[in-house]
This record gives sequence, structure tokens and C-alpha cells, in this order.
Amino acid sequence: MDTMLARFRSVQKELWILQGMIALLAWDRATHMPKKAISQRAEQVAYLTALAHEKKTSKDAQRAVKALSKRKNLTAIDAICVKRFRKEMRKALKIPLEHVKKFSNLVITASHVWEEAKEKRRFSLFQPYLEKLVTMKLKEAGYIDAKKRPYDVFLDDFEEGMTVKKIDKVFERLKIRLIRIMQQITASEQYRRQKAMKLVFPFDEQRKIAADIKQRIVPDNDRIALDDSVHPFTTTISEDDVRITAAYRKHDPFFSFTAASHESGHALYELGFSKKLSGTTLYKAPSTGIHESQSRFWENHITKSKAFWQFYYPAYKKHFKALRNVPLDRFFQQLNLVKPSLIRIEADEVTYCLHVIIRYELEKALFERKLKVKDLPKAWNKKYHDYLGITPKDDSHGVLQDVHWSEGYFGYFPTYAIGTMYAAMIFNQMRKENKRLEKNIRSGDFTAVASWLQRKIHRHGATFLAHEIMKKACQKELTPDDFIGYLKEKYYALYQCKQVNMKGVTT
Amino acid sequence: MDTMLARFRSVQKELWILQGMIALLAWDRATHMPKKAISQRAEQVAYLTALAHEKKTSKDAQRAVKALSKRKNLTAIDAICVKRFRKEMRKALKIPLEHVKKFSNLVITASHVWEEAKEKRRFSLFQPYLEKLVTMKLKEAGYIDAKKRPYDVFLDDFEEGMTVKKIDKVFERLKIRLIRIMQQITASEQYRRQKAMKLVFPFDEQRKIAADIKQRIVPDNDRIALDDSVHPFTTTISEDDVRITAAYRKHDPFFSFTAASHESGHALYELGFSKKLSGTTLYKAPSTGIHESQSRFWENHITKSKAFWQFYYPAYKKHFKALRNVPLDRFFQQLNLVKPSLIRIEADEVTYCLHVIIRYELEKALFERKLKVKDLPKAWNKKYHDYLGITPKDDSHGVLQDVHWSEGYFGYFPTYAIGTMYAAMIFNQMRKENKRLEKNIRSGDFTAVASWLQRKIHRHGATFLAHEIMKKACQKELTPDDFIGYLKEKYYALYQCKQVNMKGVTT
Repeated sequence: MDTMLARFRSVQKELWILQGMIALLAWDRATHMPKKAISQRAEQVAYLTALAHEKKTSKDAQRAVKALSKRKNLTAIDAICVKRFRKEMRKALKIPLEHVKKFSNLVITASHVWEEAKEKRRFSLFQPYLEKLVTMKLKEAGYIDAKKRPYDVFLDDFEEGMTVKKIDKVFERLKIRLIRIMQQITASEQYRRQKAMKLVFPFDEQRKIAADIKQRIVPDNDRIALDDSVHPFTTTISEDDVRITAAYRKHDPFFSFTAASHESGHALYELGFSKKLSGTTLYKAPSTGIHESQSRFWENHITKSKAFWQFYYPAYKKHFKALRNVPLDRFFQQLNLVKPSLIRIEADEVTYCLHVIIRYELEKALFERKLKVKDLPKAWNKKYHDYLGITPKDDSHGVLQDVHWSEGYFGYFPTYAIGTMYAAMIFNQMRKENKRLEKNIRSGDFTAVASWLQRKIHRHGATFLAHEIMKKACQKELTPDDFIGYLKEKYYALYQCKQVNMKGVTT
Repeated sequence: MDTMLARFRSVQKELWILQGMIALLAWDRATHMPKKAISQRAEQVAYLTALAHEKKTSKDAQRAVKALSKRKNLTAIDAICVKRFRKEMRKALKIPLEHVKKFSNLVITASHVWEEAKEKRRFSLFQPYLEKLVTMKLKEAGYIDAKKRPYDVFLDDFEEGMTVKKIDKVFERLKIRLIRIMQQITASEQYRRQKAMKLVFPFDEQRKIAADIKQRIVPDNDRIALDDSVHPFTTTISEDDVRITAAYRKHDPFFSFTAASHESGHALYELGFSKKLSGTTLYKAPSTGIHESQSRFWENHITKSKAFWQFYYPAYKKHFKALRNVPLDRFFQQLNLVKPSLIRIEADEVTYCLHVIIRYELEKALFERKLKVKDLPKAWNKKYHDYLGITPKDDSHGVLQDVHWSEGYFGYFPTYAIGTMYAAMIFNQMRKENKRLEKNIRSGDFTAVASWLQRKIHRHGATFLAHEIMKKACQKELTPDDFIGYLKEKYYALYQCKQVNMKGVTT
């Protein structure tokens, strides 16, 4: 093999190995690490992160990429690898190392302070750190592309090709529809009469169910592990080593089930990249949004569907005494209870994206300097009131609830809604192509589902951008319509809504 | 601070960070890693190991060490760091990188083959790999010091300052005494009548006991984690992050208890180094033997003592229905049943060191070319017959039982017996200095015990060699006498031995 290509491949491989170990450090921190090791763990992560940055921007890597960029005789995959790597490398080179180090130190402190602030329910503790984070991110955006809108620069990290302009259009439509659906639901007789049953499920049994769901979605047990953590997540340590976690809540009986399904969807994606891409920069998802589409797909369209529960409920209820006398229909209603609530990750399918849109609008305002950090809690609470009709009782149930900002992630939130819309597009397309889909689900047979996802989405890795993959798979651009249609079909039936058309609005 | 010293400290710190991450990779492999990730894990370990080797032998490190070696104005600790580091660096520089890589690849394959051979109970599968391992280790010894006995070169890695000559003298005495004690025990009426009770303890309850024992020996819960693994071990990931594992056996009710106590002893040591040594090459135990003394101390002298069980049994028996009608004395006898057996890690206190001595004698013969690898199983079985009066039914209960050789560790086994003898020396010294020791143990109060160990042993890290620390703490050199005395006191009472003196032998 020629030297330049060999060198380029070895840089990619090194980065892959380093990323895997950084992922292991993070996974371990969240699962098994003793508490007091936190600052030593930060040192370990910083060490490998700096090393990865060094490798990515080394003279050696630069030379190889420069030489290969001019080549006409590369294979298609090598050519895309070079293109993608060059983009990432250039970005990394534009940010001064001093800035990177300062920011990563800031994040460590900010995360600690955020935890404390959340515990004490006081945003004012976190405020100065969030201000610093915003300032430094604005500076970073300037380094990368001073001509671009800063928020567009951030979006590029999570959803390449996506812009504020595009999101605004889609989210505006999504928001209006969701609010309208909520009006229909809350106006229903069913909604007025609904009551959350007090179901308490023993953790040990919840754990068995989580493991079972994982097994059904990712049948290859030897490439995945399931553990406990405070917040559920998925991470990849190597090609055959994906970890998911679930969390078990006493007062939220379905939380662990939903988390297990959601994270298994992520894991199946991570385990489905083509082996041809192994060791390259393309062995990953092209965007956070498309990743989220995979988790949302399994969570919403499969394991929260009526068809699934027709199959699963008899076995499921055997685990929980509390369900002994609960018939399927009543259970299904409980699982899919719609109710405006304060915490994003506990939200139902209908209100979920409103939580996301609120965060997006606030982030955008922050970075366009239309909103000051100190005014965030007020703005947050106002939006919750306007969109969801409820107001957080304190900051920890409001503006402090998510970890993202404390870790320096801005522009991440919209991908949750993008993924949710993608998932509905995928489900519709799959249904169109496979007339037996519902029957498959009703019999607990997910092979056709998994195979479709693998063929159309997973195997590509980052060979194409997310919207390219989606366009090919579903023959359309990002749209809220499939998701809106799905919600209406499912929830208008559940709530026996009359579907009165409001004037001028197509529901 | 002066540049050379700063550079030297930073190299030490980097190595410490790298070692911690290598330890995490190994811990994870044995506890939570999905099976299929094994070869990718090997790649990750190889990457960090090579990096550590590179850092340890870099021109930068060499220059700093060379310059600092000549300094007269270093602090005592810095001077010892330089001395110890130089020794390790020189050793690393003597072995060609090619040899290191080849050996580490051989170990990966050999470990796999060993596992298979053990499963299939066929030594012949493993034989060619063990031959290669022996050949490569002989070569390595030649690189390091061609004038030394190869086995002495290996011993230096585990027990600095120890030699075949010294061990032979101690082990010979130990062996004769142990065989004599066994003769006394097996001649007793009690022994002839003894029967192992069929106790089956549920794993969940065993787990609670393991966690409780860990908590009693290492009270600082925020610096230690306990997990399951096939073979119990202890590893250190950072200053405040030590992991121990326990294993749970259906047909060996005390195995997990013993493992938890043993590994907690290791962990307490790892957590007890002086913070002043943090980030230096002295932040570790000076030898494997002294490390083993800490695990053996807690395992044998504390948690297998009558005093301990007088305190612990009432709480313990509540966990296990099988013990409902078993009085303390009968239980204590069961826990301390002496019986020649085939598996080292399941052996009782009396026979344990005979298992170790057998391995030592065979290793020594291998490297002095007095024994061929192919003749190992026969030699193994003969020694088991001669020393313990039993013969393995197959290779997996014989020569294939331990992982050490497949991982390239030769010269490691003797440290198990050295540690056991050290532990008895420590216990005797502690008893001499603290008249309330037995009373402390009988009331479950281990603060004085832990504090003695911390003061006399733990805090020193590797500032002194093992035998120097032991000499200072116990005022004597390595001797089997304390251990032999301890065994007689405990087991002659348990077996009501008449202690008939055989001619010419002082028992």
C-alpha cells in the first residue's frame, strides 16, 4: 500500500482506539467508578483527549491529508474519508490549543457547579459559569467561521448541513401542530377523567425487563452490555463493544423500560456499521439527529405501539404484581398517558418535542445576544407556561434540569426533535414497503425491521450525510408531517378526540 | 521548579496515568466487557502499553534521569524516585522493542490457547506455546543480565532483592515443616472423622457478605468498588479508585468470603500509600510478596480467626438458612477444614504453600533446563503425589490450572508463599505490640490493626524495598517460623493433635 494512504489509515485507526478508551473512561465514571476518583478521572480523560487532538492535527496527518486530497485514484471510501477527516482536522486546527484546554477545564468546573446548583435548586450558582461557557463558545465559533451565524457553527458539529434557517421552518410548523394536538387532547373527556395509576415495580423485575428488551432489539448478546447509571446513555468502546445503561425510578414505572428500548435503538445502530468502514473516520453515525431517530424509532414506533403490547403484555405483566388485574387497554393508556410535565426526559410522546423547541429557542436567543444568561430562568418559565401551560416550581425542575449546557453542548437539543421526526418518516416508509410490518411486531418478530434499518441506514456509517441517507431511505426531506400524522392516529384514538378542525388550521 | 526535575515528574505522572488506564482496560475486560470485544481490547491495551514503554524510555526521560542522577541536592524522595526509575528504565531499554512486541503478541495467543487447553483438559495443546514463552523469557533474561541466573532476573520483577538461593533456604525449611504438620493432622482422630458439610449459600446473600467484609476492611466506600469476575483480583485505576472483585461458587460456600477478605487486604494497601508519593514511581508496593502479605494477613489472621468469628458468626449465619442449626465451633471447623486438594486457590491454610512450592520448584527446573516443557505434567503430578499425597485426575486440575504462565509470568508464584510468611510475621509483631489485639478483633474493631499496617507498611509505598520495610516493622528477616508457629497453634488445637515429635525434627 502506498505510504501516504497507510499513514492516513493509521492516524484514523489511532483516533478510533483513543476515542474508544475515552468512551470507556466516561462509561465507567457513570457506572462503576468510586465517587472520590472524579478529579483523577478528569485527568485521565484530559490526557487522552489532548493526545487525540495532537494526533488529529499532527504534521504527519496534515501532510497525508494534503497529499491524498489531490489524488484522483483513491477508492470512493478513501476519498470520502479524506474529505471528512480534512474538515474535522481543519476545524481542530482553527481553535487554539490554549482555548481547547481552557474550555475543557471550564467544563469540568462548570459540571461540578451545575450539579451543586441543581441540587440546591439555585440557578444563580451556575449563572457565572454558563456565562463563561457562552462567551467561550462565541469565541470558538469566531475561530471556526467568523462569517457564519455562531449557532450554525455549533449545529455543524451535531447535524452537518443543518442551519437555523432550516430548523426554524420545520420547528415552527411542528410547534403549532403539537400545540394544536395538545388542545384537542386536553379538551377530550378522556383527558379530563384520566388518572395516573400508582404503579410500583420492584427494581429487580424492572432490570429483567430492561435486559429482555435489550435482547429483543440487539440479539447479539456478546457485543453489548447493560448496566445501571443515573441517566441512561449509550456509548461505544470498540467495534464489538457497545454499552447501554438504564435507570430505575421508583415513581416512574415505565422509565427503565423506555430507556432500555431507546438506548437499545442507539446500540443497534452503533453495531450495524459496515465492517468495510472499520477503523476509518466513517465508522460512526453522520449526525446526532439520525442517531436519535434510531432510538426514537424503537422507543416510540415499536415498543410503545399497540401491536407490540398485544404481543408483550402477557409476559410483561407476570413480572409485576401491581398489573395483575390491569387489562391491556388500561395498561396501554397508562403507558401512553399525555400530560404536560416539567422534565424533558420524562415527557410523553406528544409534549416531548415542545420541551426540545423551548431549549432550541432559548439557545438561539442566547447566541444571537437577544437573551442574557441571567434572564434565562424567567424566559424558560415563560415558555413552559406559553407552550405547555405549566410553570416549574424551581430551577432544578426548570432551567437546570439538563446536563448539556454544563458540558458545553449548544446546538445539541434540536437533534432530539429532528431524530423524532426522522423516526416517524422511517416508520411510515417501512410500513409502505412492508405490508406485514404490524403483523411482525404483533408476533414479536423484529428481524424485518432490523434488517431494513441495517440496509437503509446503519451500514452506511458516515459515508453520506444524515439528510442524504434519509432522502435515499424515505424519499423525502426532513418534515414534521409524518410525526404529526403518527401522533394523531395514535393519540386521537386513545383520547377519543373529535378532531374538530379549528378555523384555518389543518389538523 | 527546575526544568529537569519538572520534566522527570511529568514523565512519572504520565506513566501513572497510563498505568491506571491500562488497569481499567484489564478490569473492564474481566468484569463487564462483552465477549466479542476481546481482540479489540487487546489492541487498546497494546496501544497504551507501547505508549507507556515509549514514555518510559524516551530521550527526554533519559536526559532528565541522567542529569538528576548526578545531583546532590535532591530531596530524599526525589533521589529514590530517580534511582528506582533509572533501574526500570534501564531494564526497559535493554529489551529490544521487537522482542517486547513479539512477546506481547505471543501472550495474547498463548492465553487463548491456554483457556482452550484448560477447557479441553489437554496440556499438549498449550505445550508449544509454553515452550515459546520459556524460550523468549530466557532470551529476555539474557538481554537484561546475561551473567545472572535467569530465574533471579525474573524474581527481580516481583520481589526485588530476592534470589533463588535465598528462597531455596526458606522454602526448604517451610516445606519440611508443612509436610510434618500435615502428617500430624492426618494422623489425628479428628481428621479421620472429618466430613465436609454440604453447604449451599445463595449468591445474593454471598454478595451481601462480600460487600460487608469489604466495608469492614476498607471503610472508605467512596474509593473502592466491588464487582464480580471469574477470578477474584484487585487493581488500581487511580489514587482514589481501587477495584476488587469476588467470585461466587456454588460448591465452595466460603470461596467468595475468603476472596472478599483477601482482595480487600490488597485494596487497603493500595489506598494507604502516603499522598506525598502521589504521581511518583514510589506510589506502589515495592514487591508482589509484601502485597500478598496484606491480603493474606486479613484473610488468614483476621477473618479466619476464632476471635473474628466469635464476633461475626451471629450476623453471618442469619444470611444462610443452611447454618441455622450449626453452632460456632462446628462452623469454624468447616471453614478451616484441612485436606490435601488439587487446586491452589481453593486450598486450606496448611497445604496452600505446598502448592506454591511445587510451582516454584518446577519453574526453577524449567529455566535451569533440568526439566522440559513436555515433561511438565508428569513432574507436576509426581510432586503433588509426593508432597500432598494426591494425583490430579487431568491436566486442567493439574498443570493447566493457573493463568500465570500463559500470561508470561515466571517467578511470580514464590511471592504467594513469601507473602504468607510475611503476614504471619506481621501478626506476631502486632500481637506483641498490642495486647488488646485479640479483644479488638473479637469486637469487630479493626482500627488499631489498620492503623498499624498503614504506619508500618502502607504509607511507605516503594520508598524502601519489601525486605527493608519488613525488617523495620518486624525486626527480622523473612522466616517461615512465625507462619509455622501460627499453623501449629491454630490447627493442632482444631485437630487435637498430640504433637508427637518425630525424630530429629523440631515441630
